[in-house]
Amino acid sequence: MRIGYKEAAEFLKNCDNVYILTHQSPDGDCIGTGFALHDILGRMGKRSAVLCSDPFPKKFSYITDTDNVPDFEPDTVIAVDVADIKLLGRYEEIYGKRIDLCIDHHISNTGYAAKTLLGTESAAACEVLYRLICAMEEELSDYGAACIYTGLATDTGCFKYENTSAETHEIVSELMRSHKLNYARINREMFDIKTKGMLKMESAVIDVMEYYLDNRLTMVCITKEMLGRLGVDFNELDGCASLPLKVEGVEVGITIKEKSDGEYKISMRSTGDINVSAVCQTLGGGGHEKAAGCALTGNLRDVKKILVEAVGKAMP
Amino acid sequence: MRIGYKEAAEFLKNCDNVYILTHQSPDGDCIGTGFALHDILGRMGKRSAVLCSDPFPKKFSYITDTDNVPDFEPDTVIAVDVADIKLLGRYEEIYGKRIDLCIDHHISNTGYAAKTLLGTESAAACEVLYRLICAMEEELSDYGAACIYTGLATDTGCFKYENTSAETHEIVSELMRSHKLNYARINREMFDIKTKGMLKMESAVIDVMEYYLDNRLTMVCITKEMLGRLGVDFNELDGCASLPLKVEGVEVGITIKEKSDGEYKISMRSTGDINVSAVCQTLGGGGHEKAAGCALTGNLRDVKKILVEAVGKAMP
Repeated sequence: MRIGYKEAAEFLKNCDNVYILTHQSPDGDCIGTGFALHDILGRMGKRSAVLCSDPFPKKFSYITDTDNVPDFEPDTVIAVDVADIKLLGRYEEIYGKRIDLCIDHHISNTGYAAKTLLGTESAAACEVLYRLICAMEEELSDYGAACIYTGLATDTGCFKYENTSAETHEIVSELMRSHKLNYARINREMFDIKTKGMLKMESAVIDVMEYYLDNRLTMVCITKEMLGRLGVDFNELDGCASLPLKVEGVEVGITIKEKSDGEYKISMRSTGDINVSAVCQTLGGGGHEKAAGCALTGNLRDVKKILVEAVGKAMP
Repeated sequence: MRIGYKEAAEFLKNCDNVYILTHQSPDGDCIGTGFALHDILGRMGKRSAVLCSDPFPKKFSYITDTDNVPDFEPDTVIAVDVADIKLLGRYEEIYGKRIDLCIDHHISNTGYAAKTLLGTESAAACEVLYRLICAMEEELSDYGAACIYTGLATDTGCFKYENTSAETHEIVSELMRSHKLNYARINREMFDIKTKGMLKMESAVIDVMEYYLDNRLTMVCITKEMLGRLGVDFNELDGCASLPLKVEGVEVGITIKEKSDGEYKISMRSTGDINVSAVCQTLGGGGHEKAAGCALTGNLRDVKKILVEAVGKAMP
């Protein structure tokens, strides 16, 4: 059942012993929302803990290095930034059917929770939580402000993407006015710092970048041999997926990842008018208009040829 | 003479036939300020033109592709975002001694103009101009809003750096509320798009990155041979200067650029506590605490040794 801010505020005032679940492969938004909620519940005198199927990445330690021990049985289970119970990972089986409240901003939210506070106009789940905290007339701590800022900054690419709204900037303005907030340090951690491995990978990706269709399509293929040679694993590839799209004049960027011999995971991004979801659907995949994917098998040369043809057909 | 917003507003109301001068090597802030001022003056029924010693980079064409012809003699000369008349390039000689008004935010402004509106608390000259426009009770056009946004975004690294303030976010919030502003497209142009040459250069820079002092210092040397081999010129190196600083754990990043045989231009950046201005001063250079430079001559091996020693001494 969809609920509003007032009802969600009431719910939080009356709950206790709360497990807060984030999605697997946790990012700045679910971590920020989870720990800001944990902090606010603590300030309200309630016991809570944030749980995630995967470990929290080290770079979020300024948020996650806090008192967070699930040494109690939960009376209440809240999911944050989780669009679908499948994303709970190993917690799906245990808690998937007993989520009392979901706080989210994804339009694709499946409505799995008993009550859902869904702010689809919000850039991040952190933005929804911030509004909720205002509705509760609770006060954020400086730590809570850092959590909220982290979610807003990471989900908007540091206020770069289309999902950033006037309200997002307004909230950041309020956070900066009312709190000691080391945003420059947070942004450096989130957007600038790379490991040696990531840098080596970027360099390797640029070196193997291929151009097709009058430079309107770029393609990179990341093979297992490359990863092995550079000593990098798949998790360090995140930043590289957007590289093919950054070249001047490019309309579609494709990243091909070799899974096992003859199996390829394709991710396709569009900078403008070409609907890559439609392109991927012709290849058995799907996704969003500007970010979609599919899986192909065969030899690499054929896979590339299929992709170039499929994109070429979609180009005006 | 330093003046306030009210007096600057008065000045603009009473001027006409204005040359607006930006600094050489123009960036988003001086271009944004210059053309926003040009637009506002036009809306006030006054003739003006924006002049720059260097051509405006192509990526700013959404701002600079406008009616801007200096086919009149100036009665008034205004410099925007220009801290020192030296930065006027070839216009220094012609107009350096007759700047009527300077609109700037640099604390280092030398006070060369008859009247100076200096907002040192502002993240960008565009922020100063925005406040001035509010003081004049003039209304921005959507085009003017795009100009102001461009200056704010570029000077703050898309709201990432320490110079971003609560007021900066507030102004952006107002711009987004009141105008049709294609900020996602602007940010893509400013921060994401790279030329093939820049990408190749990045890859080459990563490949030659050297690590010293327990990985606390990274150094890259960009030789003329490298530039020649990749077909890239010095102007395309901008993004690369920050690469050495992006590696996890690095405290100082040095970029060495080969000017002519045996002459090297050194730029040094700090991520934290090490004052690179002091380090560069020991080598005959100077700058800011976190971004400084110097020039060294000799053979490359000696130059590197001198730099590693100088940085080593400054490390606690």
